[in-house]
Amino acid sequence: MEITAKMVKNLRDATGVQMMLCKEALKEADGDIEKAKILLRKKGISQGDNREHKDAKSGIIYTYNHDNRVAVMLELRCETDFVAKNEEFHNLAKTIAMHIAWSKPMVISRDSVIDPQIVAEEEEIARSQVPEGKPEQIVEKIIEGKMNKFYEGICLLEQKELQVSEGKMTIGEMVKELSGKLTEKIVVKKFTRYELGE
Amino acid sequence: MEITAKMVKNLRDATGVQMMLCKEALKEADGDIEKAKILLRKKGISQGDNREHKDAKSGIIYTYNHDNRVAVMLELRCETDFVAKNEEFHNLAKTIAMHIAWSKPMVISRDSVIDPQIVAEEEEIARSQVPEGKPEQIVEKIIEGKMNKFYEGICLLEQKELQVSEGKMTIGEMVKELSGKLTEKIVVKKFTRYELGE
Repeated sequence: MEITAKMVKNLRDATGVQMMLCKEALKEADGDIEKAKILLRKKGISQGDNREHKDAKSGIIYTYNHDNRVAVMLELRCETDFVAKNEEFHNLAKTIAMHIAWSKPMVISRDSVIDPQIVAEEEEIARSQVPEGKPEQIVEKIIEGKMNKFYEGICLLEQKELQVSEGKMTIGEMVKELSGKLTEKIVVKKFTRYELGE
Repeated sequence: MEITAKMVKNLRDATGVQMMLCKEALKEADGDIEKAKILLRKKGISQGDNREHKDAKSGIIYTYNHDNRVAVMLELRCETDFVAKNEEFHNLAKTIAMHIAWSKPMVISRDSVIDPQIVAEEEEIARSQVPEGKPEQIVEKIIEGKMNKFYEGICLLEQKELQVSEGKMTIGEMVKELSGKLTEKIVVKKFTRYELGE
């Protein structure tokens, strides 16, 4: 199927992704715009990953304060001052900061420094919950599953965004999606959450 | 000299300090309202200190954000929700947060945990700067003076407030003054400062 300039433009208008990538996605999806959108979203994610070598030196410090009782400070980085002024970028910062306020993640990702004592304790609890008499291989699988749940609970990027009921994206996926859309590396650099009296 | 109710009321209006304390200060100052004000200010300071045993369980989380590039999050505690809503209390929080944004203190006070390596290095520098041939007693005095300067540089409560040109109060004195005025313990519980790219 021939990919016309109009099809490319339509996809570009719908996704904000650059021309060349739209054209490639449409070719791959054999001209089906909906399929191409899904492909682009997947590419958006891998595109975000492929920018690991890029420096994210620009960005913003975002603060969210709920009623002077709970507040979050967040450093969200990107590559250029241009994106640092982008409205969607600011909206993402707001979404993440509000998410942190309510979901209280402990760290950004599994790569973050997590107190080894907490991890050890969690593994012990997981092990103690496995029914007796299971083969060792199954035991390890169950513990792995439980530890995955544990990490999803404490790592910001693995947590499901609260506001979105349909998409059920994680914060990490939202970051990668916008990263793909704006074709810039986006990084949650650090965050701090205060709650009165804690 | 007789202390009239009107004199007490005048002093109270001027300072916001409670009746009984105004009366006592006027007696001590022999009716001189300006002297009484100074006495009250001194008392305000000691009053703040004397509330050490009180619990400062209420308060606010204050956030200050300058242009999405520098931001400060501050927990300022007081004893009651009543004071937590007080305008002067909020103004103090704002003053402190802005001060932190520009002055970059490392810690709240000398009681805070300060990296012992930094202190040791600073002491070594101070010692190396003392001219040779001084008696040991003098050397220690000079080092003490230099270390005091160092602590003033890194401890929030010892730093001079930037905005005030006349009074030249430290942040700690400002906290104590308002504490005395509102007759409630006020405590800078914690703060975090973010600067983009740091």
